Amino acid sequence: MIGRREMKFCVDTDKRNSWYIGTDNFDTMMINKIESVMFQGNGYLGIRGVSEERQLGERRDMFVAGTFDAFPGEVTELPNLPDLVNMEIKIDKESLSLNDGSIEDYHKYLNLKNGELTRTFDWIINDKRINFRFSRFVSMRDKHLFVSKVEISSDQNNLNIQIRSGIDGQQSNSETQHMIEGNKRLYDGQYIQLMSETQQSHIKFAFNVKNDAYIDGILLNMKPYINMGRRQIFCNYDLNLNTDQKFTLIKYANVYTSIDRNNANSDLSTLSLERLKYNSLSNYDELLQKSTKSWLKNVWQKDYVKIDSDDIKPQVAINFARYQLVASTPDDNRMNIGAKGLTGEGYKGHTFWDTEIFMLPYYIYANPAVAQKLLAYRYLGLTGAHKKAQKNNYQGAQFPWEAAWPEDGETAPLYGSADIITGEAMKIWSGFIEQHITSDIVISVMEYLNATNDQEFAKNMGYEIILDAAKFWVSRLEYDEDRDRYEITNVIGPDEYKEHVNNNAFTNYTAKWCIQKAIKIFNTLKENYPDIYVHLNEKMNLKETYNEWIDKVNKIYLPRPNVDGVIPQDDQYLSKRIIDLSRYQTNNQVSDIFKSYNLTQIDGMQITKQADVLLLLNLFGDRFDEKIKRINWNYYEPKTTHDSSLSLSTHAMMASDLRLNKEAYEFYEKACEIDLGTHIGKASQGLHLAACGGIWNATVKGFGGLKVVNNKLSLDPNLPANWQQLQYQIHWHNSLVKVSIDHSKMIVGVTDGDLEFISHGQTYRVIDGKTVELDYVVEKS
Amino acid sequence: MIGRREMKFCVDTDKRNSWYIGTDNFDTMMINKIESVMFQGNGYLGIRGVSEERQLGERRDMFVAGTFDAFPGEVTELPNLPDLVNMEIKIDKESLSLNDGSIEDYHKYLNLKNGELTRTFDWIINDKRINFRFSRFVSMRDKHLFVSKVEISSDQNNLNIQIRSGIDGQQSNSETQHMIEGNKRLYDGQYIQLMSETQQSHIKFAFNVKNDAYIDGILLNMKPYINMGRRQIFCNYDLNLNTDQKFTLIKYANVYTSIDRNNANSDLSTLSLERLKYNSLSNYDELLQKSTKSWLKNVWQKDYVKIDSDDIKPQVAINFARYQLVASTPDDNRMNIGAKGLTGEGYKGHTFWDTEIFMLPYYIYANPAVAQKLLAYRYLGLTGAHKKAQKNNYQGAQFPWEAAWPEDGETAPLYGSADIITGEAMKIWSGFIEQHITSDIVISVMEYLNATNDQEFAKNMGYEIILDAAKFWVSRLEYDEDRDRYEITNVIGPDEYKEHVNNNAFTNYTAKWCIQKAIKIFNTLKENYPDIYVHLNEKMNLKETYNEWIDKVNKIYLPRPNVDGVIPQDDQYLSKRIIDLSRYQTNNQVSDIFKSYNLTQIDGMQITKQADVLLLLNLFGDRFDEKIKRINWNYYEPKTTHDSSLSLSTHAMMASDLRLNKEAYEFYEKACEIDLGTHIGKASQGLHLAACGGIWNATVKGFGGLKVVNNKLSLDPNLPANWQQLQYQIHWHNSLVKVSIDHSKMIVGVTDGDLEFISHGQTYRVIDGKTVELDYVVEKS
Repeated sequence: MIGRREMKFCVDTDKRNSWYIGTDNFDTMMINKIESVMFQGNGYLGIRGVSEERQLGERRDMFVAGTFDAFPGEVTELPNLPDLVNMEIKIDKESLSLNDGSIEDYHKYLNLKNGELTRTFDWIINDKRINFRFSRFVSMRDKHLFVSKVEISSDQNNLNIQIRSGIDGQQSNSETQHMIEGNKRLYDGQYIQLMSETQQSHIKFAFNVKNDAYIDGILLNMKPYINMGRRQIFCNYDLNLNTDQKFTLIKYANVYTSIDRNNANSDLSTLSLERLKYNSLSNYDELLQKSTKSWLKNVWQKDYVKIDSDDIKPQVAINFARYQLVASTPDDNRMNIGAKGLTGEGYKGHTFWDTEIFMLPYYIYANPAVAQKLLAYRYLGLTGAHKKAQKNNYQGAQFPWEAAWPEDGETAPLYGSADIITGEAMKIWSGFIEQHITSDIVISVMEYLNATNDQEFAKNMGYEIILDAAKFWVSRLEYDEDRDRYEITNVIGPDEYKEHVNNNAFTNYTAKWCIQKAIKIFNTLKENYPDIYVHLNEKMNLKETYNEWIDKVNKIYLPRPNVDGVIPQDDQYLSKRIIDLSRYQTNNQVSDIFKSYNLTQIDGMQITKQADVLLLLNLFGDRFDEKIKRINWNYYEPKTTHDSSLSLSTHAMMASDLRLNKEAYEFYEKACEIDLGTHIGKASQGLHLAACGGIWNATVKGFGGLKVVNNKLSLDPNLPANWQQLQYQIHWHNSLVKVSIDHSKMIVGVTDGDLEFISHGQTYRVIDGKTVELDYVVEKS
Repeated sequence: MIGRREMKFCVDTDKRNSWYIGTDNFDTMMINKIESVMFQGNGYLGIRGVSEERQLGERRDMFVAGTFDAFPGEVTELPNLPDLVNMEIKIDKESLSLNDGSIEDYHKYLNLKNGELTRTFDWIINDKRINFRFSRFVSMRDKHLFVSKVEISSDQNNLNIQIRSGIDGQQSNSETQHMIEGNKRLYDGQYIQLMSETQQSHIKFAFNVKNDAYIDGILLNMKPYINMGRRQIFCNYDLNLNTDQKFTLIKYANVYTSIDRNNANSDLSTLSLERLKYNSLSNYDELLQKSTKSWLKNVWQKDYVKIDSDDIKPQVAINFARYQLVASTPDDNRMNIGAKGLTGEGYKGHTFWDTEIFMLPYYIYANPAVAQKLLAYRYLGLTGAHKKAQKNNYQGAQFPWEAAWPEDGETAPLYGSADIITGEAMKIWSGFIEQHITSDIVISVMEYLNATNDQEFAKNMGYEIILDAAKFWVSRLEYDEDRDRYEITNVIGPDEYKEHVNNNAFTNYTAKWCIQKAIKIFNTLKENYPDIYVHLNEKMNLKETYNEWIDKVNKIYLPRPNVDGVIPQDDQYLSKRIIDLSRYQTNNQVSDIFKSYNLTQIDGMQITKQADVLLLLNLFGDRFDEKIKRINWNYYEPKTTHDSSLSLSTHAMMASDLRLNKEAYEFYEKACEIDLGTHIGKASQGLHLAACGGIWNATVKGFGGLKVVNNKLSLDPNLPANWQQLQYQIHWHNSLVKVSIDHSKMIVGVTDGDLEFISHGQTYRVIDGKTVELDYVVEKS
């Protein structure tokens, strides 16, 4: 039975509305998980779903995209900024704390459609019942703006309310402080401002807050009492409330930085203050409405995925995934999406291959303009990639495993946690030898170019990235004289449990493929775009490197399937010991295996962290036949712990392609549960944004059957049995393509241009404004 | 009625034992207060009395004396170091938290005699009752060593216990991070180490921890599971316990730094590890016993104050005061006592006049060797004092208002909190114009020399300090041609509510007095110690400055008593508006007046923060007659808010001298309650160590009548009516003097030399080993 089990979410959902996630329980064990899952952001500013009042064990993170700074002795990271969320509330001198007194009617819900977070509860303390309603949003219209509101009423007369609401710069990245405290000011008796600057990168920040206090909707003519502390400035209110009254505080807050695109040369203090003055002319609802409209216009009108199923959870998961991707994606080509976006301190805000392989497909098909910016970031990153290559005595562009500011190059930390046996900190080899990132970027550029046919991007940036990547790869090759072949030794492939391997299949295949792409592009440019050719030839000595490509490309060693059809993950893998991994696979706790073995021991066994050979087969599906895929699935899947959040969605897609429908749906469910699931994991560190991309991939590319075969759009869906219908829309060559699949038919419609696509090997054409209807057939793969 | 009210302490005391302070309630409002009051330290290492498990709102500070560092843009401060106290405990997977479940039989007590802190309680969670007993101490024998212990038993079989105990470097000074993370290592499977370094001052630290786990006293042969995080390394235990079993974990921890006197050139990592290996050969009780012996030998055998009274609280207060002074006083003349000692982040660990005027008397009489080191710190600080003088275009030694590393000079922050009206941060003028500190140091040097007759110190350091101070003062004088006199304008006196005043009485009197002392010393040196004279003359151009002293000293303007006998606090004070201050005096909340007025407004009124003229009269009691003292008491006391913790003890002494016995005891009680009292105040920032000194001063110098009159010891006690007896011992000129006072007699005994002292104007001589008995008479002053 497929879909017989239901996804287990840490949040509740509204059965009729897939756009709300929330919880009706206050569970101290789940604080960090809820903070991550209920993240609010607009790609510029990101705030975790912390409570307004402080809680033990919380992670009160707020980030602005791209504002990297390095603490002495550490790699660069996104600084955790002064807290704008905090409100300290005292009721009759008793501090609001959910650990004291009792709580009834608790609800904390995030509206995924517009990012509004609300929290309501009754706090019963000393025989008083006080009703609280908190609501807040990060504006999608004005990306600097954060607005929040608290409403308080009670069953008491003469209830004393004290509220402290302001800017609390006593924040840090797990106690690492990036900010130098600047001026603190009060303007016009009601606007408070804190200026700050990062200690190494010298990025300046202005934070402003204004509070408006109301009783029963009447604005109080009441200047707050101001107090300051170290890195802190607060407005304080102290008033009494009767049982028939409602107190409301609206907090307007904003952040500006010296690296903002539009105000680099402005007086940050004045500009940000003026903007807040303007913003605070509108009330909460008006500002929320504007933000909601921007969400609709910029996101939901472009991006449509609808699942009809008795189970609402897949629809919640895909809504959640898209909301989170958008909330963490900067609109600035000097920046990219962090592995955790702006949702937590994990991975320091750095960008990995997660973007290209797992998140970019969503943008390429749903919002190609964003995809273009994310790839342009890699173009800007060529400077950093050249640095890295030179440092390692290679040529061309060796992209960093971890990227922050594009020209910085490699920002991976050098050391990680301890080896359990020796007690010594372990070198993190990824920044040195996990080199497939350079191929991953080329894969993504090609997927973007295939889907968009964006010639401008190709000519201005895309081709250069690919040529430069190939230049790196050819310099990276090592000649084995005995066998007259080129090898790539001492790398880490996608499977990070295997360090210092030789001829990792994924790495070698994709390196060769990069060079092949570059050869084609070289010839295209030379023939069709001689000016670009001349320009790039001068810039990167293209002709010479081309000759090298031609000399070497056919001698690059590819680990071919062995007699049993198994593609060796690397030279050593197949000769290692095999153990039964099932107990590590079923347990939801990631990295359980490290409680039994250390990395050296794991290295000695056929244990794979995540799709490696299978990822190759998935990404280059049109280059391997079904038999090889099935053999390798059968071989590698039981050896995979799925300790990487990148693994499950790939397996879901792969299983669906192999028509292993039960497994496909099980992997799909697990993929949807990576962040939304009930296990706590590393939620305090933030969401797994690649897994969010994975949900979209598994839904649209997996079950929805969206593929690119020989550069052509291909649609071979495989609708789960418990879904009645799947509808989605994608962009293809400037056209908008709408696909609707149920168990009897597939309807494909197109606007803004004609469409050619393949289904089950047959080519279809749809004219602008028309649709074509096909019988729904699931062929055995 | 004297003593009709009882002191109100935030802690309970054992009625029969004045060496225990504690609480039988867990009160979340009092967390910070209890942390400060139950501070543990040995002058090198200081740890706040936080709970082992984390709590919301706690201040988990640990400091090593003298390890100052400056975060960019900030003044230097003592860095809050990695936490060695924390133990995270889970019982059947439930984290120990006093906010969850319920607590019975809670007791948290500090033994003031040996600094052991114990905390016991039953935690009732999910119908299980678990008994916890935590105990710990900072060793007085091995100043690097901190040992703690937890004992756990329950009414359950098969109770699962998980403990994480290690080194948690995720600590900061209110989120300002000073430490650069260094290596984290595991040695021999059981010793963990974290290396760190301050980011600006580059002081290196080694932190080591070893845990020993026992069941029923049997050491478990169990290697901990090690895990690491950012700035963190932990040992983890996971075991099950039956109802008849007791689990014990002993945590041995130490800290070494690169500025330690004895190991500056050692390999810190190896040295500290070897020391911990050695320490951990002994068990908790053995190590505690050694530490207890050191407390006895180094402290309590030298220092004796005994109060016989039906109320035990005065004895508790004086024990508390002496314990806290010792616990925060470094044994290293490159360091001094911070205004908050090592007990909190307040005042950044900086040293103020608090040491000289309020704390040093205790050491001068109880332990003069320590006093000598604290004054030697000022001698080393001459470099910094010269820097400050030069910067301000003065000569000689202008001592810093706030001092950290002696050669650094002024370390006062430039800006403080906001002005309530303008919203602008206020310049902190103390570092610029609160100049009486230079006199205060001379006062203290003279008190030390009078009491000890330490010629070595005088010749090597003391005289030079005084001469250099006088050189500063004479360069500081401003000539008023019209009146042919020298003035000192634009200063802050002891009363910090009055900034930019002219001719502050305290400042002018003490400046003149300094120059007078210097003139005497000049002549003494020239006549008796020509080699020193020649040396200092070369060093500081003494002859020239001497001529200036002679020229100017008699023309220094002193604000003499006016027609009513009132000494004007400064030129402007007496012409300002007078308001009724009584409501700000009775309220225990410090700085209440700022809720009504800002500093500019206060400046315009006759409001005094703390003893100013009265302090002058107190410190130079033999230079002013009783009538002037009484007039000025009657004038200034009602105008004083006592917003400084330095005010109450001075007033207690002054009132006692004036035989205003009711007022004296009321001020005494309030002085004892500054830290031990029930109001929360700024307890999170640490204790008021000057107020601890003040308790000793008010007890021994006030009621005990210890004074120096014309350089001679004088004993005119004034025993409170509700005290049956007061006994104390002091050091005077290498003799040990024991004084015992009851309402019928005073007995003075001496060992290690003869003694001459004055009582009621009459001179007595006591021969070594003998005592003299006087009738107890309280003359009207």
